Amino acid sequence: MAAERLVVIGGDAAGMSAASQARRLKGPDALEIVAFERGHFTSYSACGIPYWVGGDVEARDDLIARTPEEHRERDIDLRMRTEVTELDVAGQRVKALDRESGETYWTGFDKLVIATGARPVRPALPGMDAAGVHGVQTLDDGQALLDALDALRSEGPRRAVVVGAGYIGVEMAEAMLKRGFEVTVLNRGEQPMATLDADMGRLVHEAMDGLGITTVNGAAVTKILTGPDGRVTEVATDAGTYPADVVVLGIGVEPETGLARDAGLPVGPHGGLLTDLAMRVVGHDNIWAGGDCVEVLDLVAGRTRHIALGTHANKHGQVIGSNIGGGYGTFPGVVGTAVSKVCDLEIARTGLREKDARAVGLRYVTATIESTQRAGYYPGAKPMTVKMIAELRTGRLLGVQIVGREGSAKRVDVAAVALTAGMTVEQMTALDLGYAPPFSPVWDPVLVAARKTVAAVRGAGS
Amino acid sequence: MAAERLVVIGGDAAGMSAASQARRLKGPDALEIVAFERGHFTSYSACGIPYWVGGDVEARDDLIARTPEEHRERDIDLRMRTEVTELDVAGQRVKALDRESGETYWTGFDKLVIATGARPVRPALPGMDAAGVHGVQTLDDGQALLDALDALRSEGPRRAVVVGAGYIGVEMAEAMLKRGFEVTVLNRGEQPMATLDADMGRLVHEAMDGLGITTVNGAAVTKILTGPDGRVTEVATDAGTYPADVVVLGIGVEPETGLARDAGLPVGPHGGLLTDLAMRVVGHDNIWAGGDCVEVLDLVAGRTRHIALGTHANKHGQVIGSNIGGGYGTFPGVVGTAVSKVCDLEIARTGLREKDARAVGLRYVTATIESTQRAGYYPGAKPMTVKMIAELRTGRLLGVQIVGREGSAKRVDVAAVALTAGMTVEQMTALDLGYAPPFSPVWDPVLVAARKTVAAVRGAGS
Repeated sequence: MAAERLVVIGGDAAGMSAASQARRLKGPDALEIVAFERGHFTSYSACGIPYWVGGDVEARDDLIARTPEEHRERDIDLRMRTEVTELDVAGQRVKALDRESGETYWTGFDKLVIATGARPVRPALPGMDAAGVHGVQTLDDGQALLDALDALRSEGPRRAVVVGAGYIGVEMAEAMLKRGFEVTVLNRGEQPMATLDADMGRLVHEAMDGLGITTVNGAAVTKILTGPDGRVTEVATDAGTYPADVVVLGIGVEPETGLARDAGLPVGPHGGLLTDLAMRVVGHDNIWAGGDCVEVLDLVAGRTRHIALGTHANKHGQVIGSNIGGGYGTFPGVVGTAVSKVCDLEIARTGLREKDARAVGLRYVTATIESTQRAGYYPGAKPMTVKMIAELRTGRLLGVQIVGREGSAKRVDVAAVALTAGMTVEQMTALDLGYAPPFSPVWDPVLVAARKTVAAVRGAGS
Repeated sequence: MAAERLVVIGGDAAGMSAASQARRLKGPDALEIVAFERGHFTSYSACGIPYWVGGDVEARDDLIARTPEEHRERDIDLRMRTEVTELDVAGQRVKALDRESGETYWTGFDKLVIATGARPVRPALPGMDAAGVHGVQTLDDGQALLDALDALRSEGPRRAVVVGAGYIGVEMAEAMLKRGFEVTVLNRGEQPMATLDADMGRLVHEAMDGLGITTVNGAAVTKILTGPDGRVTEVATDAGTYPADVVVLGIGVEPETGLARDAGLPVGPHGGLLTDLAMRVVGHDNIWAGGDCVEVLDLVAGRTRHIALGTHANKHGQVIGSNIGGGYGTFPGVVGTAVSKVCDLEIARTGLREKDARAVGLRYVTATIESTQRAGYYPGAKPMTVKMIAELRTGRLLGVQIVGREGSAKRVDVAAVALTAGMTVEQMTALDLGYAPPFSPVWDPVLVAARKTVAAVRGAGS
């Protein structure tokens, strides 16, 4: 019998990374690891689902980084299709429900990792559960959508309505376009990609128009209409009604923290668990949490946010596993970097938008420039727009947004590092970024934006 | 008559950027600007010449950012085909030779910018001036090579020998391959791309093999052999003799500072002018220098280097012009970032190589990882190798080298910013870099390298 038992709730990125890293540092004699996963899969890339649906990725299993069997080979007692339904913090135990057998049982823990992830936001509107309405958060969701698309193949009209114009929405718009659908994106907000300022979102809107995707802004869904067979026929919004053979919901997620809340664990303003830098749940030395169910510190805004993103979940798991395994790691926070694409349009952001800056009391200036991702004379040079936000007076970088074509999005990483380092835009103008004609104009677009932002900081006076 | 006169020696990136920026800040009444250029062109992209020769860029004029006429429209008294042959520092005047008329004259200055650039290294070997041997530093060089290639078009064998396997060498190897030549690269060193460590250079070598480019290492050219018509026939090295219908010299450049040396201005260990942070020549408040004729401070090594690169030259010009125009700017130094490609192989580096670290007394650890530039399951995912070097004990990042396929090279910018900020590899493991399957695995390759380097720092003990 092992010296102590680690229980992990949730078998995806954060949970299984934590389990694997703890196992790497401590053998089965020192640490027993029991992991519960309520679904059919472990350690898969939810971010890859749009590309699987769109046909870029052939098989579902391509998205699975590690199967249950592979985890078990690493001496992790993984219990699939088993949901933790109750957490007894004081008693250091969890109650599990085996979904296959219906059996329930308690399991004690010395250490606990909560990695319950996020659940899709599904507004309680009429028709939301109709046949032909699909979420795309899990592999099961993706399979259900693909099956539905196959069934539609032989039929006549092929109209897809995507609800939501954030990352999942625009990626699913691309996927449905690739599947040969006429695609309409219904966007509640002013412009698509609300994670950008509206002036940059407008560029995304225009580019989506150019790709043949219709985006309707200011269109909040009020009802899903169905035919006599119970299948979706139209989507009604406060801005009009849109015919639909299939509806894809891409309206974001929220932390899955019901279990933790019921157990009295602390959640933040966005509904996510609150942790310290070592990813321990605040006030609980033997309980860790990570992935889509926690709030993370936004290093630029100085307060917590909820960001559901696989790359953070993996880092959390790594940190948690290191600490549980007797090593040391921290997750200092995020600067809010995100990249995405719709067909050949690339979209990136990091740091604060204008409204984020205002919300935390920062005064700022902005500058927007147009350049190209390669030297203008080099084949494939295409437009790239960079918006930069800097603090008034100090000139400290606050955020960057990029909309462009191939080779644009990952340049946001330069700004992500600069934000982490607390650089001013003046310091950024001297950055030694890689230059050669196939890769950049002689002034890298990020440097051009920094120079223009410097001028804005100066021009704004003190 | 203007209040004062600025004289600029050299009409390319640094010189004309300085002139243009000074003009932006001060009108002709306040500042007269006289610029001397001994060649036929101003403000052109020498870095673009390989792509023009290779056919990616159609016309020579595509490489010209600003013509003499455009500069003159901005009230710059630009004198083309006019070489400054003497600099009288005490007398504040320069002697100019009009290469068309043969006339010489003195011109006085209140402020002087030296931007004389670099000259190609041409070893004094027999046959080096034979017909069919071409440098590729200037537009005139490029035109001469293209004319020679046209003349060869109708003839039988088409064998190109490229001497040198640095940036220019590998870029010219690609260009000659695209022109339909059988290409042999003769490399004096252990592996191509001596700006990388040899272990990474070996990857470039293997990839060049795969592209059909023969690279011969350890092959120092001893003689160019010519036929009865005086044209090149073979290139002799200490490692063998190679048939050649055309020879391209890509063996680097050195600062063109004869004029400045003769005038007693200070040059550094690499033959470049020494400047302060405002780009003033050390000891001379009214003389500035920038571009390929100066040495720059290597912020990682803590000493000067010579780097001929358009992006630095443009920054220098901007800084010089701002200071002369009554504004303020500094060039704090470089971290040594460079990116390049051969066909679809991308090569990047920043910071110190192992031997650079040793040369300045730093002890270090290294780690090398293989990953992919996109999520492994995403179409077009291809190998990407990252080598990272960190200081012993402190774990401070010292350098990064990358060899990979499309989408690899510009990731070095992340390391360039981290070097500038003095980050440790431990800090780098938490960087919030953009993640989505088309752009990166869930652990960005730079983060994977940082994690492995952290382990190496720890493993090396104190």
